[in-house]
Amino acid sequence: MLSRRQMEAARGSRPAQTLFTNLKWINVFTGVWETASIAVADGVIVGVGDYAAEKTVDLKGAYVAPGLIDGHVHIESSMLVPHAFARIVLPKGTTSVVADPHEIANVCGKKGIEYMLKDAKLSPLSVFLMIPSCVPATPFETAGARLEAKDIRSLKTKKGILGLGEVMDYPAVLGSEEGMKQKLLAMKDKVIDGHSPGLTGKSLQAYVGSGIQTDHESSLLYDLEERVRLGMYVHLREGSQTRNVRDLLPGITKDNHRRLLFCTDDKHPSDILKEGHINYNVNLALDYGIDFLTAIRMATINVADAYGLKTKGAIAPGRDADFIVFDDLQKIEPTAVYVKGLKVAEQGKVRFYQKSADATSVRDTIRLGELPASLDLKLKSSQVHVIGLIENNVTTTDLLESVKVKNGCFVHDPNVDILKLCVFERHTASGRIGIGLVKGYGLKNGAIAMSIAHDSHNVIAIGSSDQDILKAVETISAMEGGIAVVSNGTVLGKLRLEIAGLMTEEDPYLVREALETLDKAARKLGVSEAIADPFLQIAFLALPVIPDLKLTDYGLFDVKQFRHIEIEANE
Amino acid sequence: MLSRRQMEAARGSRPAQTLFTNLKWINVFTGVWETASIAVADGVIVGVGDYAAEKTVDLKGAYVAPGLIDGHVHIESSMLVPHAFARIVLPKGTTSVVADPHEIANVCGKKGIEYMLKDAKLSPLSVFLMIPSCVPATPFETAGARLEAKDIRSLKTKKGILGLGEVMDYPAVLGSEEGMKQKLLAMKDKVIDGHSPGLTGKSLQAYVGSGIQTDHESSLLYDLEERVRLGMYVHLREGSQTRNVRDLLPGITKDNHRRLLFCTDDKHPSDILKEGHINYNVNLALDYGIDFLTAIRMATINVADAYGLKTKGAIAPGRDADFIVFDDLQKIEPTAVYVKGLKVAEQGKVRFYQKSADATSVRDTIRLGELPASLDLKLKSSQVHVIGLIENNVTTTDLLESVKVKNGCFVHDPNVDILKLCVFERHTASGRIGIGLVKGYGLKNGAIAMSIAHDSHNVIAIGSSDQDILKAVETISAMEGGIAVVSNGTVLGKLRLEIAGLMTEEDPYLVREALETLDKAARKLGVSEAIADPFLQIAFLALPVIPDLKLTDYGLFDVKQFRHIEIEANE
Repeated sequence: MLSRRQMEAARGSRPAQTLFTNLKWINVFTGVWETASIAVADGVIVGVGDYAAEKTVDLKGAYVAPGLIDGHVHIESSMLVPHAFARIVLPKGTTSVVADPHEIANVCGKKGIEYMLKDAKLSPLSVFLMIPSCVPATPFETAGARLEAKDIRSLKTKKGILGLGEVMDYPAVLGSEEGMKQKLLAMKDKVIDGHSPGLTGKSLQAYVGSGIQTDHESSLLYDLEERVRLGMYVHLREGSQTRNVRDLLPGITKDNHRRLLFCTDDKHPSDILKEGHINYNVNLALDYGIDFLTAIRMATINVADAYGLKTKGAIAPGRDADFIVFDDLQKIEPTAVYVKGLKVAEQGKVRFYQKSADATSVRDTIRLGELPASLDLKLKSSQVHVIGLIENNVTTTDLLESVKVKNGCFVHDPNVDILKLCVFERHTASGRIGIGLVKGYGLKNGAIAMSIAHDSHNVIAIGSSDQDILKAVETISAMEGGIAVVSNGTVLGKLRLEIAGLMTEEDPYLVREALETLDKAARKLGVSEAIADPFLQIAFLALPVIPDLKLTDYGLFDVKQFRHIEIEANE
Repeated sequence: MLSRRQMEAARGSRPAQTLFTNLKWINVFTGVWETASIAVADGVIVGVGDYAAEKTVDLKGAYVAPGLIDGHVHIESSMLVPHAFARIVLPKGTTSVVADPHEIANVCGKKGIEYMLKDAKLSPLSVFLMIPSCVPATPFETAGARLEAKDIRSLKTKKGILGLGEVMDYPAVLGSEEGMKQKLLAMKDKVIDGHSPGLTGKSLQAYVGSGIQTDHESSLLYDLEERVRLGMYVHLREGSQTRNVRDLLPGITKDNHRRLLFCTDDKHPSDILKEGHINYNVNLALDYGIDFLTAIRMATINVADAYGLKTKGAIAPGRDADFIVFDDLQKIEPTAVYVKGLKVAEQGKVRFYQKSADATSVRDTIRLGELPASLDLKLKSSQVHVIGLIENNVTTTDLLESVKVKNGCFVHDPNVDILKLCVFERHTASGRIGIGLVKGYGLKNGAIAMSIAHDSHNVIAIGSSDQDILKAVETISAMEGGIAVVSNGTVLGKLRLEIAGLMTEEDPYLVREALETLDKAARKLGVSEAIADPFLQIAFLALPVIPDLKLTDYGLFDVKQFRHIEIEANE
């Protein structure tokens, strides 16, 4: 709603602040390219056409489109706090995101969500939040917090909250479980995001019937088609690991595209810096031959409409003056990005000063308790369940292997690629450690530890020696969280993630550098080149909802049986 | 959100209640005609496809579409209370309406709105309400109530309330007047309906910038195009008087149609019974050559999306089982209409029992005070301002005429078509009567009075003799409101409108009959055949926002000068 001053500017009874002239902008409502000037006052578009203004910006005939919107993202996956994340996505043209702070909520609960809102405000990026619906993700692990329906209701009225975050616990939905029902009811007048990989047929219909409106887990054309047919908004996702856009593009039609959106979900800083952010999704679509209007709508007005963002997604009076300037209609690489009428990025570089929000409430979150001197894995038998890695995949296999046992304990055999995997409970300082075995990682000598371990984010560590594992874990503890690679007692690389053990306030370019150093160190220790990302490969080993065999702080978890099991095969 | 029982039906673990088979339904999300069966449980669609059910309904190959939605209607204009209105629109396929109870609110305030919600619940028609934003319409007349921002806030949370009703007072919007600003702010997270006839250019941009999202006053193609371009939702209206659909159809494109909706605004029972309701708008579009998908979307999902009606507008799980059955793709005349899975109409006839809500709070609203013995119009001069009627138009002209004066008072001259017009204040029994003169109505001998007089709905009367005018007004008072035609002291016809003086609980067919009798009586008294509706023609003469000259209970009002004036021309 325009202020009195803005209304006067809109009516032309006082000059606007800035008039953008000499441009071609796409009208997402009509599909028409327009050449009318854009008048801005106090950050908002007050009108298009002939306006007087205090300042004129000549865009020299460039193309202009509304700022791009990421319809579903976990900012934590960038390992950057919101304002630092903003520094790398804004130059790519993303001016708004619908973020699900699921990771920090699992560590810090409501405080984490409030921190995200607070920190996001310090950058020009508009960050809207969905309240995580599944914290903790399961009862089989120790998380740092618990969000119940009452917490969701209390957060609901905060500015910037759009609805309920991806509802992963579909059995609870389909079974009308009381806790889940209360969460859905609490948000039924808002947007409810889904997460329904592989759900199909009647189960999917029941899921949609529960009031869940979106899904970003379509990987097959059929997934998309089935969901749109039922009225869901479907995000075409292009993240670092999950790259679905190319497979889904053939599903876009003139008649169905208003239910289609773009998102990144989880994307690393190096990939964002290298290929782009939501503009990359758009560019994939353009490259495939999707018409410009359809592609740009999926990144702008469609997201705004789906999430009720009345001041975003279009160039029109009353909407924020967020827009991108570019020269090539086949590949959007913004030459300039404007947010609320101010140029925040130019030629790929940000132009705003980086500030940090007070992060006290989300610091000092690694609470390990006293570490033991060694990490004995006692075995009653040498026939054991081993987690079999699948390269670049979050699912695993449940292998039966014969391992070396000495004095009743597992011993690492340098000739066999089976490593010890440990999950250190880090929220309550209980000292609880889950220990298991992993095959297929390739590491020969040393250890890797990190405080990113979905979804509870305990400290996960893998290694060939107890001492290196413990050294890596200690390194993480000393940094208040992060990633460390250790060999023979020496730290070869580390990245500090001091915010909830998940993110850092550090400069994104330095983070990318640290990640490159870490990657090299991991490769040096022998991690298989077939594994695209040594850290992502272990980040999901503690998530007991993805088949087949996982490890939590309570021990080995058989996802198919949905219960903890003993490691010995004869159990 | 589906209940546990419905979820079980959706999943197929218990039979649905009803399965509709052997049909072709339009999927408004994809544009595809589908043949999958539709499973319903407890009134809601739980799934489409192969389902077991307690009962199967064979639709014999008929076409099926979602129930039609009227995007903007004043139910009061039908002169029927909501549940009676439902009886005539449901057979035409309208299963939901977004209603603005502006008329009853001007008479009864919050009580009137609450009554509309209560009475609507007694029929299968889904009635959603917008809270009227302009009660009273102006400060130049006496209304029965006043709705301030605080009243709007208190009504906002009621079930069925979607937002703020058409914001007619655009000067208050453009001038950022405090009272209006508070109303807009109160509803900024909901839908805000506009009303901006003729508003264009910068004024329109400011109006849109204030957060107003829709408009139903487009009469020219340019109006529609200008509004959609700015992101407004535009209703293509086809009412009894205002018939805009044909003129606007050329403005519909594949690229802009998602911002286009259909509405009736004001439609009389006889027109609804004769030509149809929203199906008539659709049929006009089909006849013009608009493709079926686009036309049906404008009457279903587009309205649902624009107003946030998550359970309406489509055939999909979790949505109410509201749909129409028809045989002809070029002209929708429902052979059956289903609401929440039950057949409510068949071959144009309703199939539900009519109940009435307790109407005590909206009865006995004609409070006239004592009537005078005569209605002297004292004149200091014979040169006077006369309201010049424009046939079938709500605007008037300001005529200067010379009239017959006797003993200082106006006298009706049977050879001159100038009649006395009176507005009797009827809310506070003040006894205040505004008296003016009207040219062009044609009535020769007698009087017509009615308690429908926009927007304050005082009792308006026109006639050739004071005695007939007073007799007509007395007749209305005795009926608790309505319309009466009188000649030489005899009542030739009357229609009782006992609910707020605007509506009746009577059977719609009897109402139509009464209106026909009234029309004949008015014609008999000489009302010009060029006037399509003798009653509508005078219903807007008391509305001091429509140019040029109007009459309120405070006297003659010059709309161009926006102030009351003396009747004598030399003033």
